[in-house]
Amino acid sequence: MRATQFFLNTLKEAPADAEIVSHQLMMRAGMIKRLAGGVYTYMPIGLRSIRKVENIIREEMNRAGAIELLMPAVQPAELWQESGRWEKYGPELLRLKDRHDRDFVIGPTHEEVITDVVRKEVKSYRQLPLNLYQIQSKFRDEIRPRFGVMRGREFVMKDAYSFDRDQASALKTYDVMYGAYQRIFTRLGLNFRAVAADTGSIGGNRSHEFHVIADTGEDAIAYCPSSDYAANVELAEAICSEQRPAATVPMAAVHTPGNSTCEAVAKQLDLALSRTVKSVVFANETVVDKKKAVQIILALVRGDHEVNDIKLGKLPGVQELRLATEAEIVEAFGTKPGYLGPVGVQNVRVVADRSVAAMADFVCGANEADHHLYGVNWGRDLPEPEVADIRNVVEGDASPDGQGVLAMCRGIEVGHVFYLGKKYSEALKATFLDVDGKPAVMEMGCYGIGVTRILGAAIEQNFDDRGIIWPLSIAPFEVVLCPIGYKKSEQVKLEADTLYDALKAAGVDVMLDDRDERPGVMFADWELIGVPLRVTLGDRGLQNGLVEFQSRDGKIEKRDVAVADILGVVQQALAERRIG
Amino acid sequence: MRATQFFLNTLKEAPADAEIVSHQLMMRAGMIKRLAGGVYTYMPIGLRSIRKVENIIREEMNRAGAIELLMPAVQPAELWQESGRWEKYGPELLRLKDRHDRDFVIGPTHEEVITDVVRKEVKSYRQLPLNLYQIQSKFRDEIRPRFGVMRGREFVMKDAYSFDRDQASALKTYDVMYGAYQRIFTRLGLNFRAVAADTGSIGGNRSHEFHVIADTGEDAIAYCPSSDYAANVELAEAICSEQRPAATVPMAAVHTPGNSTCEAVAKQLDLALSRTVKSVVFANETVVDKKKAVQIILALVRGDHEVNDIKLGKLPGVQELRLATEAEIVEAFGTKPGYLGPVGVQNVRVVADRSVAAMADFVCGANEADHHLYGVNWGRDLPEPEVADIRNVVEGDASPDGQGVLAMCRGIEVGHVFYLGKKYSEALKATFLDVDGKPAVMEMGCYGIGVTRILGAAIEQNFDDRGIIWPLSIAPFEVVLCPIGYKKSEQVKLEADTLYDALKAAGVDVMLDDRDERPGVMFADWELIGVPLRVTLGDRGLQNGLVEFQSRDGKIEKRDVAVADILGVVQQALAERRIG
Repeated sequence: MRATQFFLNTLKEAPADAEIVSHQLMMRAGMIKRLAGGVYTYMPIGLRSIRKVENIIREEMNRAGAIELLMPAVQPAELWQESGRWEKYGPELLRLKDRHDRDFVIGPTHEEVITDVVRKEVKSYRQLPLNLYQIQSKFRDEIRPRFGVMRGREFVMKDAYSFDRDQASALKTYDVMYGAYQRIFTRLGLNFRAVAADTGSIGGNRSHEFHVIADTGEDAIAYCPSSDYAANVELAEAICSEQRPAATVPMAAVHTPGNSTCEAVAKQLDLALSRTVKSVVFANETVVDKKKAVQIILALVRGDHEVNDIKLGKLPGVQELRLATEAEIVEAFGTKPGYLGPVGVQNVRVVADRSVAAMADFVCGANEADHHLYGVNWGRDLPEPEVADIRNVVEGDASPDGQGVLAMCRGIEVGHVFYLGKKYSEALKATFLDVDGKPAVMEMGCYGIGVTRILGAAIEQNFDDRGIIWPLSIAPFEVVLCPIGYKKSEQVKLEADTLYDALKAAGVDVMLDDRDERPGVMFADWELIGVPLRVTLGDRGLQNGLVEFQSRDGKIEKRDVAVADILGVVQQALAERRIG
Repeated sequence: MRATQFFLNTLKEAPADAEIVSHQLMMRAGMIKRLAGGVYTYMPIGLRSIRKVENIIREEMNRAGAIELLMPAVQPAELWQESGRWEKYGPELLRLKDRHDRDFVIGPTHEEVITDVVRKEVKSYRQLPLNLYQIQSKFRDEIRPRFGVMRGREFVMKDAYSFDRDQASALKTYDVMYGAYQRIFTRLGLNFRAVAADTGSIGGNRSHEFHVIADTGEDAIAYCPSSDYAANVELAEAICSEQRPAATVPMAAVHTPGNSTCEAVAKQLDLALSRTVKSVVFANETVVDKKKAVQIILALVRGDHEVNDIKLGKLPGVQELRLATEAEIVEAFGTKPGYLGPVGVQNVRVVADRSVAAMADFVCGANEADHHLYGVNWGRDLPEPEVADIRNVVEGDASPDGQGVLAMCRGIEVGHVFYLGKKYSEALKATFLDVDGKPAVMEMGCYGIGVTRILGAAIEQNFDDRGIIWPLSIAPFEVVLCPIGYKKSEQVKLEADTLYDALKAAGVDVMLDDRDERPGVMFADWELIGVPLRVTLGDRGLQNGLVEFQSRDGKIEKRDVAVADILGVVQQALAERRIG
């Protein structure tokens, strides 16, 4: 491609509403253009990267046996009523009426439509398993669209849906998709992690989010640098391998006036924070036999830990969990928060984190204002508690897979593989005749990738103060040629055209900047746009038979290369950067 | 692709709502699946053909210098209000409100959005010309969607929009697009014609529709078999090279009781129908200086011709044209329709078609019930009329380009190139700084192709009682291998797999039907689906080293080919069918 035959439009300044770096850089590089809140035109240079992402996804989906189709964006409400999501889905679902006043939605996702297709087409177990996908524009009416393509309203997604005979087969399909996603994000050249995710109401443990690692990511991830383990912080298991030591001191009350936090008490007593126990009181609202009741739960974690209420919410018997009110606390503990503890409590469900259960001689509130207890020991001073994993993991915790210790990072979710079970197939009656001739309900999975979001995530991971640093596989161009004086020097033009033709002939995605701009303007544009490799051709170098070569990522610093060698040098650098 | 790894689903019967053959065959071949009225899922086999169409379009658009981008489907109402189409566009424009109650539309076309992009990005003449295109799903809320992909509501289109400095440059761009369309439809393997079309309110003569020729087409086209000339029948110029002969008989009244049509009068008088003149009365409602008036127009065409009211509507002074009421006719002519004529009329604008102006001694109504006039002559019996082309062309008319005579055919519109002038650029104030430093309004053109409609049109043009006969370039597969007893005979499996691998390695888009179905089922499926070339492998033939080869279009009848030769024979047949 020649710059004069392309549509380039870089900006010096990002618009004021671009809050994060990927949004700013995509706007400045001219990749996207705002049409309405969260609705963007993908400009030619942006579309080039989108197509590269799509092609990699398509190749790997096909390789994994998935079959591409294309479903409509506009969907009849009936299917959403059948699945129950017409009511459940919030205002993010864009609803509309056609000219005959029939209800439709613009699809934010396609479980209903694909299940309708498959229930009509698949009659026999012989037609299963089946994995169908599409790459398509979706619409979610975000209440506050922002961050450019990261949280847009109209966006491009790859969504796949699998249908299997039984759970064993469905889980096999899940694993195949998991593997395909690993290959996709590897080929995209991104630093990513597959992160165990919450399965919500579906249950089971087959849900993984694929996160691009970036300091600016919305999600906190716990991972093990020496293994594949990774999970959302809320979900990562906190294990405790320590054994409880024997008690060494008697329990005693300590006057701790005004020191209502573990930190303050530890400081007063000159103890490690990890010797203290933090008490957090929750109310569990239950309905048993249509009778409402409130159970008070005292959650105990070490002073240096935090309670994880998602984990707490999954304890047996917990229905509706919330923090207890001050009135409830005073009623149950006889004192206000700040000096609460598990000793002597009645009608309170005491749940100790695993690490708390392994403590001896610990410090906790005395259930009396301005007082704590010192030297408290389980079994001796109070009953053994209910023990569970109820805390957030922290850096340095043992990895649940036993392969090392956990580290923390932040991530941007760009993909999700999800075992759905029979959630939609049951609601929409997607059945088939099994080997035994009896009807059975299909097992489903769904597998999404945010195509346009990947561009934003890739930039959040790879940028500097000059602009974007694209991985080779999704850069809008692989190589840019910057001739200095293209329209003034015949030699520069000749060498630039020759190298351009040679690279094109070799299948390289090359941009020749024939705009005849000043070098500073050219360099600034291409560094902003983030093309991985650059060759600069000028009269001065060419007099000595030399051109300049460098890579955007800094790994190849600016150096002179003989004109005769440059084609090979560029191809070598490309080969080193190509994945898969 | 192997059939067992693909999603095939042919039907014996088309659904009842499929009225035309392309709709029936696309449903039966499993290419599309109905989701709602005019809304279809493109099933895997249908999507394969769509992608092939898209790729040919993309290659030729790029070759012609157009640049691809991707605009949103959901568009803010403000732009449509700015262009005036928010009011003018009828209920086909699907309007909706987002969660914040703001008005949006689902784009049926993108003039507004692209003009908004370009007015913001293009500041200087140096950035022009610019031709931007996208391939995208559009939505038009047809009141009665039908004919499958031919008149759907959601459909895939390629739409391009050009921006030029001045009219000369815009018309050059138009010609480039015209050429690109010629190449596109040629490469698609379709019998088509570029047809001069009405420019409506835009004016000018730069509007061509590209029609796929098919007996079932909605549009009547007049074309010249010995030249490139083609036009919608409504638009084709009817020329008249005949000179008016001298008068030979005096005018006389004839009693023609009950013979109120030209046919009846010609029969009574034993004259050729072309010797009679047909009188059709129109009312032209005008507003001049805010005063309403009705002008009565008497349109005269030969008895064997039909009045063309589109042409009539373009006569000077004609504002709002309609057929005259009986009351208006009686008032102007003193008699009821059936015996009307131009002789002796007053306060009537008499317009004669060119061919009528060239007549002598003609027959027309006498403006008296049950009477006609015979031997009527212009200049002698009545004043010379206003002469214009106001009739539809008929088969055998001289071609307006002087290259022969016109023939008639029917066509399906699949593409449209249109010179827009400043219609949108003026409304949306898309200006640039011209060479002289002064702001100027851009000149625009738009260029559409109905991607999904092409599939339907290709089928209407190419089918038989067994199914579709695809042109090679858009067939879902180029070659199908039908092994008989794939799972039973090792030799059949071995030879089928070997040929399959060899064809794949040669870049051929090949389908191996490894379903182990009976030959009749396999053949019926692939003839319905319309794969151009078929190789059948069976034990009987293989014992003699032979396989069967044939083409779907009947040009290669079933014949035996040596196993050693089949790869070459298939490649040869493909080479002969490849275009561009």
